[in-house]
Amino acid sequence: MKPIKRWMISLVVCVCSTFGMAAVRMENVEYQSSAGTFEGLLVYPADAETNLPGVLMIHNWMGVSEETRTQATRMAELGYVVFAADIYGKGVRPTTAEEALKLVGTYRADRKRFRERLQLGLETFRAQPGVDKNKIVAVGYCFGGTGVIELARSGADIQGVVSFHGGLDSPAPEDGRNIKASVLALHGADDPHVKAEDLAAFEEEMRVHKVDWQLVKYGNAVHSFTEKGAGDDNATGAAYNAKADARSFEDFKDFAREVLAGGQSSESPAQKP
Amino acid sequence: MKPIKRWMISLVVCVCSTFGMAAVRMENVEYQSSAGTFEGLLVYPADAETNLPGVLMIHNWMGVSEETRTQATRMAELGYVVFAADIYGKGVRPTTAEEALKLVGTYRADRKRFRERLQLGLETFRAQPGVDKNKIVAVGYCFGGTGVIELARSGADIQGVVSFHGGLDSPAPEDGRNIKASVLALHGADDPHVKAEDLAAFEEEMRVHKVDWQLVKYGNAVHSFTEKGAGDDNATGAAYNAKADARSFEDFKDFAREVLAGGQSSESPAQKP
Repeated sequence: MKPIKRWMISLVVCVCSTFGMAAVRMENVEYQSSAGTFEGLLVYPADAETNLPGVLMIHNWMGVSEETRTQATRMAELGYVVFAADIYGKGVRPTTAEEALKLVGTYRADRKRFRERLQLGLETFRAQPGVDKNKIVAVGYCFGGTGVIELARSGADIQGVVSFHGGLDSPAPEDGRNIKASVLALHGADDPHVKAEDLAAFEEEMRVHKVDWQLVKYGNAVHSFTEKGAGDDNATGAAYNAKADARSFEDFKDFAREVLAGGQSSESPAQKP
Repeated sequence: MKPIKRWMISLVVCVCSTFGMAAVRMENVEYQSSAGTFEGLLVYPADAETNLPGVLMIHNWMGVSEETRTQATRMAELGYVVFAADIYGKGVRPTTAEEALKLVGTYRADRKRFRERLQLGLETFRAQPGVDKNKIVAVGYCFGGTGVIELARSGADIQGVVSFHGGLDSPAPEDGRNIKASVLALHGADDPHVKAEDLAAFEEEMRVHKVDWQLVKYGNAVHSFTEKGAGDDNATGAAYNAKADARSFEDFKDFAREVLAGGQSSESPAQKP
């Protein structure tokens, strides 16, 4: 899936959205490849300067949604430009868990296609104005948490990936050798959707390939711990957990600050001969 | 070991020690119980106000040492008053690994004695001027990392414990039911001194007793990852790791900020009728 005929239309959807003290600027971004048309969401801090470090965000099983807008806003308020890529394709937005599960299954079974769409999202993000191409962290939730690790396994040249309650299994653990990004896996210690053997295999993959990796386990947290819409009943296997949400956001902040610090900026004189 | 005949002598050893921008004030504190005499180290931020939140620090296998002074200074520079308690007793400072191992073995085999000395350290800390008795986090390194979890298992009424590369095993996992403190275990993912089954048992103890717990695994890190004196050869099983050191310090900071925020201060009017 080479994005040979790609073009982009930016539609200003929301000039300024205020959440508390900070404000952000939000745009829908339509992009294409031979695989079809996609619709992502680009969020800038309201007082954005040029050449900002970026957060590539990969949505959960429901596609780009209100939940995505909430998380993207939260990160843009920190001073990052955020691009929520669209893996499913424009208009493909499941409305039931059944539909979502089916879609997730498709990409989990076809990692090549998953990676192509992740890479397309990354390239599209890099083509946006005001983004520092050399300072990008990818974050993802559940399905997207699997996605960002797949992006790293594809050899993407980004600074880091953060998986929030993502599936960590891999049909090809040898692909760990391609990982250049630092990896942070944020995991609910009681998440029934991540099997113990998959967690162990993930650790082994990271270890064998000497990846710069970290894993955080949040006690009493199950799947979807960042998502208020998941309710509060751990017995269902997926539930919001205010502590794990706040802690994982701090962990993201520390990680992004560290891996995006210093280094070569994409607009540095050295890159503009 | 009731501290019935306890008295304290504070010896001003170092009025002001400057490390970079911040400065601290350091004192040796001698204290006693029926078990003998102990000598801890009390470190205040140079510009200390009264009623500061406190960090109780439990030393590694070498006792209160230069390494302890370094770590205590680092935390006092954040604005905490730090008390490095003495578990071994005054003058008991091993000079070889063999001596240290023997001492560690004694306390690991006699958890009751270990807990008594941990509790004595905590009581001594609470009796110092300028400490907010109701805002205390205990941190420990290696042997001390085991110690702070034992302190929590003893039912200590403190806000949190942080174990840096500590042994996590327990001869009495049912004591997890006594834990009131939030628990943060910071662990080198390749630490050969913490067996996989002990790590699993620790997680199970936390889970069963619904402790507020978190575990962080730092990839490529072995035992002693915070200690520069441990060298840099992972093959020995203990080595300094700059990334894991910096990351674990950030994790400590986030945790302490969270668990010490708000709540009842020991000098609040409600406590002074």
